[in-house]
Amino acid sequence: MTNEDSAALSTTLASLREALGDDAVRVGAQIGERSMTDWTRHEPTRAAALLLPRTTEQVAQALAICHAAHQTVVPQGGMTGLAGGAIPRAVDIALSLERLAGIEEIDPASATMTVRAGTTLQAAQEAATQAGFELALDLGARGSCQIGGNLATNAGGNRVIQSGTARDQVLGLEVVLASGAVLSSLGKMVKNNTGYDLKHWFIGSEGTLGVITRAVLRLHPRRAARHTVLVALDDYDAAVRLLRRLSTRFGNDIGAFEIMWPDFYDFGVALTSMRSPFGEAHPLYALIEHASFDAADDGERFAAALNEALDAHAIRDAVIAQSMADARALWAVRECTAEFPVKMDPINFDISLPIGEIGVFVDRCRAALDRQWPGNRSYFFGHIGDSNLHLTVDGHSVPGVAHHAVYAFVYDMLGPLHGSVSAEHGIGSLKREFLPVSRSREELAAMAAIKHALDPRGILNPGKVL
Amino acid sequence: MTNEDSAALSTTLASLREALGDDAVRVGAQIGERSMTDWTRHEPTRAAALLLPRTTEQVAQALAICHAAHQTVVPQGGMTGLAGGAIPRAVDIALSLERLAGIEEIDPASATMTVRAGTTLQAAQEAATQAGFELALDLGARGSCQIGGNLATNAGGNRVIQSGTARDQVLGLEVVLASGAVLSSLGKMVKNNTGYDLKHWFIGSEGTLGVITRAVLRLHPRRAARHTVLVALDDYDAAVRLLRRLSTRFGNDIGAFEIMWPDFYDFGVALTSMRSPFGEAHPLYALIEHASFDAADDGERFAAALNEALDAHAIRDAVIAQSMADARALWAVRECTAEFPVKMDPINFDISLPIGEIGVFVDRCRAALDRQWPGNRSYFFGHIGDSNLHLTVDGHSVPGVAHHAVYAFVYDMLGPLHGSVSAEHGIGSLKREFLPVSRSREELAAMAAIKHALDPRGILNPGKVL
Repeated sequence: MTNEDSAALSTTLASLREALGDDAVRVGAQIGERSMTDWTRHEPTRAAALLLPRTTEQVAQALAICHAAHQTVVPQGGMTGLAGGAIPRAVDIALSLERLAGIEEIDPASATMTVRAGTTLQAAQEAATQAGFELALDLGARGSCQIGGNLATNAGGNRVIQSGTARDQVLGLEVVLASGAVLSSLGKMVKNNTGYDLKHWFIGSEGTLGVITRAVLRLHPRRAARHTVLVALDDYDAAVRLLRRLSTRFGNDIGAFEIMWPDFYDFGVALTSMRSPFGEAHPLYALIEHASFDAADDGERFAAALNEALDAHAIRDAVIAQSMADARALWAVRECTAEFPVKMDPINFDISLPIGEIGVFVDRCRAALDRQWPGNRSYFFGHIGDSNLHLTVDGHSVPGVAHHAVYAFVYDMLGPLHGSVSAEHGIGSLKREFLPVSRSREELAAMAAIKHALDPRGILNPGKVL
Repeated sequence: MTNEDSAALSTTLASLREALGDDAVRVGAQIGERSMTDWTRHEPTRAAALLLPRTTEQVAQALAICHAAHQTVVPQGGMTGLAGGAIPRAVDIALSLERLAGIEEIDPASATMTVRAGTTLQAAQEAATQAGFELALDLGARGSCQIGGNLATNAGGNRVIQSGTARDQVLGLEVVLASGAVLSSLGKMVKNNTGYDLKHWFIGSEGTLGVITRAVLRLHPRRAARHTVLVALDDYDAAVRLLRRLSTRFGNDIGAFEIMWPDFYDFGVALTSMRSPFGEAHPLYALIEHASFDAADDGERFAAALNEALDAHAIRDAVIAQSMADARALWAVRECTAEFPVKMDPINFDISLPIGEIGVFVDRCRAALDRQWPGNRSYFFGHIGDSNLHLTVDGHSVPGVAHHAVYAFVYDMLGPLHGSVSAEHGIGSLKREFLPVSRSREELAAMAAIKHALDPRGILNPGKVL
């Protein structure tokens, strides 16, 4: 930092202290590790300052000051991202929404919740449950991640097949633009065709177009009865046919349809010290959840549909959880990913493909990996009902190979199948160079034009997404 | 038109003829009445020319030529809009998508349909049904309206409570920008967080940001069993409680929840020459549809829930349709609106409000209308599950009062309740002056910035929305 830069920063910080109060502007050792990196643990960096505004007005003041000073700002939520989208550079000011937290209102007639950006997903879920509703967004980081971050990244998670992504939960949104202008579009209406639907510009833009401060979220009725089954299948096409068969019968009462290839399933079973409930190995496994609104639903219709599928040889075998403990044991296999960082050097992929192409892609990708790096250990699994495939390659099994080389190798295979390099984690800084795999020159130019229109000085989350 | 303008237009038309062929560029008497106005019958105007491109490439060529010439362009679909959004001025060139029609692909594995913009909604619905799926968008204009127009206006319609608006049906979108650049984002993926989700910028922008040429739409499983009931209620709050009661039990198997105040109900019953199935008059009526995926669903659970509601005095009475003819007769009352233009001089409102506020608004609005124009005949009804209220005032009952004065009077009451001047019809040219009722100065400025970024010369649908 030059002397001139340093003087400019001091002036900016003085203005910020005056506007927000001393305790809301932290520098140097006052900035904890939490603000330095996300769940990727990528290059922890101490920002030039950390702002902790308490209100939308303070966020607006802070951005207006930074805008005037051409000072870059990195919005931060729960820091649970997996794409480096909230990691600051040393020259950036981090702006944490954590103090702008809490539920402002639950409106049972509208079935909506008005919530501040810094509220954790779990707190919002619990408030919804207490009011007799359900917030239809759920992901592993629920205890730490914040609503603002969930919306800024259009988070996916466990219930997308049933209720959509974070975007689909939003009726109203309040955003502060780079200039400090506040767009307060906190409507509770499902239908509202009055000009451009501004909320959609900001949802999924990863803090590059504005800072989300509040939102009106839809609440859903509670799904009172849940039934879980583990199914063994002949192959991927059989999985797609089963998905369609069950959807035709149960619509989006099918609340999870998680596919595990044997590499992943065997690893998960071993890790959880569970004995596989099946007597033999199978080519493919699906963990399926049926979730019904009717508390009196005893799962009999679901079980009958599975029995019919068995009779029709549409599935090889099925194990229905008989208790919550059973269901939890089955889910533990799928959720063994939480242990990946401990058990291996995970190189994680979060890609999406047309549902019908995922099986072909997995076969092609595995063969290519085996040719390129014999002895590699790779694990395939995914939310296929949402077109989302995950793949984790153990870096220890490809010694001497940079993670980046593995990313480039796999992403390169996506293009011909019109796949996407990010299904639910976003682009952030870590996937930025791969964005052109999934987006055309014209699309990137349009995004840049939009970015320039809303943030002409480029102060918001520079180096992310675009 | 000055000689200079006229010469410029001639040059532009010559270029367009060269690019698209003579038969795709019509002028003067070659332009039929269909292109002159929409279903509002507002000021029919013959455009300077009508373009009929057959491909996305031709749309791109046409826009590039018009862009170079600073020539304004009005995109047109089925001309069934209710906000004047596709009505040209005499100086504009109309661009009809009608020849860019047809289903390109149905992908059963992805449950998606790739469709060209000029395809009628009904043709798309029928193709979906033939493939064993259901397109979850339906509205009265289905035989004439086109998919491109449905998406450009984010059409609502009859199934929003169940499956969302037009926006919610879209996975991929192809759009031509004012410059002629083609954004071809025709992905089939539910999850795709690779940069800004461009499709949402164009859906609902009423042709002011780009011209939609193709789309990938979600297909849903067919709802095989439908049951219809007409319910009599104590008051509006009872209606909201019933909506929540049924949603809690049946989720979005509740496929319609249409409220009719007695003014509307009595009018509809008289018009359809039906005898009201109730022995007495009631304060409020709800037409409710239960639509289940399970073909074997005989409606018994739905009937049981209504019986419980009756026992609990949550409803006053209920008539369950015993046959398709019964159901059609009940729906005919709700759909008597089709006869409004014949029976009165309709001044139509399409507004939205938080669900809990609609009852208060109706009472307040009716009292104000009666004070202002004693003897006015006004009819209140709406899709309240979607927060959408319709009101039609018969212009004949307020003789000498301009429609505009009635609009201004009613919209003025919306502000304090945070309502919206357009729920599903859009802004077009007819509601443009009322947009500030529902949008703040900051929101309007952000919309203008985006408009300028994507259409810097302002050639796309000038005078609409903004």
